[in-house]
Amino acid sequence: MNLLILPPLLGGAGLLIAFLIYCLVKRYRPGEGLVVEIADAIHQGAMVFMRREYSVLAVFVVLITVFLALAFQHYYTPLAFVVGALCSGGAGYIGMYTATQANVRTTVAANEQGAGAALSVAFLGGSIMGLVVASMGLLGLGGLYLWFGSNAEHVEAIHGFGMGASTVALFSRVGGGIFTKSADVAADLVGKVEAGIPEDDPRNPGVIADNVGDNVGDVAGMGSDIFESYCGSMIASIAIASTMNLAAVELLGGARNQLMFAPLALASVGLICSVLGIILVRLASSLSPEKALRLGTIGASVLFILASMVLIRFLGIDSNVWLCVVSGAVGGIVIGLVTEYYTGGRPVRLIAEGGQTGPATVMIAGLATGMQSVVVPVLMIAGIIYTTSWLLPEGAGVYGVGIAAVGMLATVGITMAIDAYGPVADNAGGIAEMANLGAETRAITDSLDEVGNTTAAIGKGFAIGAAGLAALAIIAAYIEVVSLHVPDFSLNINDPEVLTGMFLGGIFPFLVSALTMRAVGDAAFEMIVEIRRQFREIPGLMEGTAKPDSSRCVDIATKAALIRMMMPGLLAVLAPVVVGFGLGPAALGGMLGGALISCVLLALTMANAGGAWDNAKKYVEKGNLGGKGSEVHKAVVVGDTVGDPFKDTSGPAMNILINVMAIVSLVIAPLLG
Amino acid sequence: MNLLILPPLLGGAGLLIAFLIYCLVKRYRPGEGLVVEIADAIHQGAMVFMRREYSVLAVFVVLITVFLALAFQHYYTPLAFVVGALCSGGAGYIGMYTATQANVRTTVAANEQGAGAALSVAFLGGSIMGLVVASMGLLGLGGLYLWFGSNAEHVEAIHGFGMGASTVALFSRVGGGIFTKSADVAADLVGKVEAGIPEDDPRNPGVIADNVGDNVGDVAGMGSDIFESYCGSMIASIAIASTMNLAAVELLGGARNQLMFAPLALASVGLICSVLGIILVRLASSLSPEKALRLGTIGASVLFILASMVLIRFLGIDSNVWLCVVSGAVGGIVIGLVTEYYTGGRPVRLIAEGGQTGPATVMIAGLATGMQSVVVPVLMIAGIIYTTSWLLPEGAGVYGVGIAAVGMLATVGITMAIDAYGPVADNAGGIAEMANLGAETRAITDSLDEVGNTTAAIGKGFAIGAAGLAALAIIAAYIEVVSLHVPDFSLNINDPEVLTGMFLGGIFPFLVSALTMRAVGDAAFEMIVEIRRQFREIPGLMEGTAKPDSSRCVDIATKAALIRMMMPGLLAVLAPVVVGFGLGPAALGGMLGGALISCVLLALTMANAGGAWDNAKKYVEKGNLGGKGSEVHKAVVVGDTVGDPFKDTSGPAMNILINVMAIVSLVIAPLLG
Repeated sequence: MNLLILPPLLGGAGLLIAFLIYCLVKRYRPGEGLVVEIADAIHQGAMVFMRREYSVLAVFVVLITVFLALAFQHYYTPLAFVVGALCSGGAGYIGMYTATQANVRTTVAANEQGAGAALSVAFLGGSIMGLVVASMGLLGLGGLYLWFGSNAEHVEAIHGFGMGASTVALFSRVGGGIFTKSADVAADLVGKVEAGIPEDDPRNPGVIADNVGDNVGDVAGMGSDIFESYCGSMIASIAIASTMNLAAVELLGGARNQLMFAPLALASVGLICSVLGIILVRLASSLSPEKALRLGTIGASVLFILASMVLIRFLGIDSNVWLCVVSGAVGGIVIGLVTEYYTGGRPVRLIAEGGQTGPATVMIAGLATGMQSVVVPVLMIAGIIYTTSWLLPEGAGVYGVGIAAVGMLATVGITMAIDAYGPVADNAGGIAEMANLGAETRAITDSLDEVGNTTAAIGKGFAIGAAGLAALAIIAAYIEVVSLHVPDFSLNINDPEVLTGMFLGGIFPFLVSALTMRAVGDAAFEMIVEIRRQFREIPGLMEGTAKPDSSRCVDIATKAALIRMMMPGLLAVLAPVVVGFGLGPAALGGMLGGALISCVLLALTMANAGGAWDNAKKYVEKGNLGGKGSEVHKAVVVGDTVGDPFKDTSGPAMNILINVMAIVSLVIAPLLG
Repeated sequence: MNLLILPPLLGGAGLLIAFLIYCLVKRYRPGEGLVVEIADAIHQGAMVFMRREYSVLAVFVVLITVFLALAFQHYYTPLAFVVGALCSGGAGYIGMYTATQANVRTTVAANEQGAGAALSVAFLGGSIMGLVVASMGLLGLGGLYLWFGSNAEHVEAIHGFGMGASTVALFSRVGGGIFTKSADVAADLVGKVEAGIPEDDPRNPGVIADNVGDNVGDVAGMGSDIFESYCGSMIASIAIASTMNLAAVELLGGARNQLMFAPLALASVGLICSVLGIILVRLASSLSPEKALRLGTIGASVLFILASMVLIRFLGIDSNVWLCVVSGAVGGIVIGLVTEYYTGGRPVRLIAEGGQTGPATVMIAGLATGMQSVVVPVLMIAGIIYTTSWLLPEGAGVYGVGIAAVGMLATVGITMAIDAYGPVADNAGGIAEMANLGAETRAITDSLDEVGNTTAAIGKGFAIGAAGLAALAIIAAYIEVVSLHVPDFSLNINDPEVLTGMFLGGIFPFLVSALTMRAVGDAAFEMIVEIRRQFREIPGLMEGTAKPDSSRCVDIATKAALIRMMMPGLLAVLAPVVVGFGLGPAALGGMLGGALISCVLLALTMANAGGAWDNAKKYVEKGNLGGKGSEVHKAVVVGDTVGDPFKDTSGPAMNILINVMAIVSLVIAPLLG
């Protein structure tokens, strides 16, 4: 089967294109003097954090590898686990390395060449991340599949890849999220509120840490996050196809290996469409940034929908499977648009107006907005489940859900590019402010940043929807695999074991949210004390004649992130093992069901409430309802500060949490017989 | 079977005792002059609201009755529905009527006779509510069961009683919650924050509405809430016993009718123990209020546990069923203690300390506390499910869970008495403040109120745990009833229909929370505008020479409550009907599962976060961290204001929401075949 070689080949090609784009970015000027100094501090801070984080992760990876080797008595699963962990870590590292080079070049381009050039650099910087995520997935997963995918005895081992990717993603996301938000909250509270100096002011000792955080949280963390959903959806679809009953296989075209290969093939086509989308954005760079980015994303999606029709026909698979792809791609767009409404439309104005009666009404309005925002996305998820099950024959299980998730994530190359573009533009603005490059430069980076915020909100909604579907498909795969080993296995809601599991599963998202929010609160408090101390004890700091000791703040955030990421990560990895072996596979299945529901709901609530609070603050800062410095502004700043850990620490952890729990369960499923 | 007559007889006797206690309360002096005037305003406001609310509810009840009559073609179910609605409404009405007579007598007793007498009146006032709730349940449900409980063809009709009780409860809870919290938030924001006058100051036009709200929300709303869980747990246990397979019936002692009668018998014994507990509190009134109340509750529980052992043996039922009762009673106490910790212990101090860095950190700490507080209670629920299923034979389904819920709620007579005591004491304090009765009187009522707050927190945790178990048992009964009509019915988590339902179910708690929080926010905003207008336009109001127009505020709260309770109520009642008939019984079962998990988690999070914020404010007001008027105080007041709708509107609505959805499903289950 020569086709099998295409996904890893395309993955390799994608990495090559990413490298070429990196060369293109490097050709832009990195500036000189203060600009370089600041950019270096950010780059170094981020790299130091990544190295320390990965050293901690390496220990975990080794321990889990040893456990897997002992449990499975063959090297396929542990090997796949290590490859998955390396690919995830590698994608995050490369993406962040290049993002911290693109940010300063964006600043300089904005200063010297204007908005068009700045958009180009920022977007190219983001594109590297997008391409690396997609390519690493195809290279790693496609390579393993090529190696032992056709071997029925070892096909289950590729689940290890997903476990490696998800575990690294959870630690990165939680660690990065704690880092970035503790720095953000502390720098804002002391700088903007107490000292009355602007955001990103170079006198503020927390500002470098804040900018480092944007990279380790929003670039590296987000990259690992999407990477694991992307691979998870493919792995789940492969697993479901591999255990699908023969009658259903017949009805879907007759060849099981084609059904198993379809997810990888779809992702390969998606990568090509993403590259075309990226070229489209470049060609349209004369339009407004917003239009150019939108054209690229929608262009890539449309191309992908058309190309996947040809692909499915070429593979000899029933055309209803293509409709599943379409339902996923369209569902993703709808979820994105709803997210855009709740974090940008009328609800945001209502939150800002709540500020007229103080911070409490801002909080109430924001929480209500977040909770209400779950309705349409969850209806879409339910709709996709219902539609795909109706499209496919009965024995196909939730293959359609897996394929829909693949369809939603196939053009990850470009959606992730736009996600990563945001923090690059944000950082570029920070550097411009710190290096005093003037209002004009700042205006350009601000406009880029604003577009980035909207697109990032869409990306987040998208990521949650896709992660939910991917997790669901993995859970279904878990049930199928257990069924192979346990006769008459079923997960009946009426079964007390399943019910016990469902309640247990519901706990984790709430507990992990609590732990991560508390971690941000505590670390921010520690950093606030340090920033206040520096303002008090370093003579000349407020006057601008002395420099702050930024590295102390980076260090506080780093330590807090590394220590506080342990507990949530361990909980997620160990809980399925403990429940699976302790209470049995039925309780574990129930636990995954309970966790899935509450993860998706909390993730949407937190992400959208956070986004809405953020934009309510921006709305007031544009001069509405009294503008900056008014009482309304103070009230919406409180909302924004609470929203920070919501949308960038706890919320995003939910996606990965459920995927880690599901994939660990899938990996240990053969052992639960 | 002469035993069947005992529950309604005991119910009648309970009502008689409640009436005697009412006469006892009436013998205390109601005071004169300003005190009577204020108390009358509160009493009238509450009664007007109740009448208007019940007029709206009457229309719903009639419509649903007609629907049920058409659907079932016999009069048993619609009749049971009407009786349930009347009992629930009646319990709320009587409880509130007497509470608004006890409050002023508590004030006068505190003023003229001292703390002991004041405790007596307040507790007796609460006891009436507790006894009425328990007695109405036994009288109504026991009466119907006596009438057609032994008739296998019509036993399903008593589900209608639960549906009536739950529907009225949801509307009362949501309407009362919106009323009380919009008044509370508005009166506090304008009075305490803007005008700088104390809480309950008679010059504040919103204060009467606030005190009315305590009665319609915390007394009537809470009463209907507990009433529906109490009846729901009995109905579910009866339903499960009626469909239990014969082998299991044999193993449990051999007599199905005894298993069906057991829940009513347990509740009857619980009522007797509650009365004894109430007497115990009276006898111990020379101790501190806290000790007296604790002695009464724990005494009643211990008595109940012992008496239920005798009862189970007397009924010839396997003694493991008694262990299920114990697991429920003990589980309830543990959940209560955990609630007490999270709303009173170290977490509260941490929230208050968060105030040192502003309201944002108070919010983050409070939300984290609320989320973390779900862990132990949900573990307890999971533990009860697991233990009871292990105690009983396999075919008994979740009969043990139903019995555990009955065990948790059997002593509702005294737990509800203590719950209702809180708002009576709170109101007494409000009247003392408004009538300027001096610091000494206020100190007594404050100390009573404080005890009430702690015990109320325990009661809330208790109510959520019991409601969750009751709902679970009802869901199990639903599955059993559908199985009778649909061969091979099962709710497999792997089934796409069930999954679709689970996601749909997860939406409702979030949507209802959003709707109710927004309702409070909007109504509070409207009232704030009105209160500000009165302060501005009524000459002499601030100087105390003119009176505020309190009725305008009562009217705003009433209208908001009546209009805004519609949507959540309709959603809860109609969703199961639409999903059940539209997508089928499997999707409906999945929906109940998803809704159950997310209702319990949200209910605990909101109730405990709200309670913790409330007490963090009180902690600062006692002089800690700068005390009243400090920046820390301002920050914790924000937390308290957000916590208000959390703990008294949206959170409590969750309990009933899941029970309404479950019981409506149970009622329509025979029609889904």
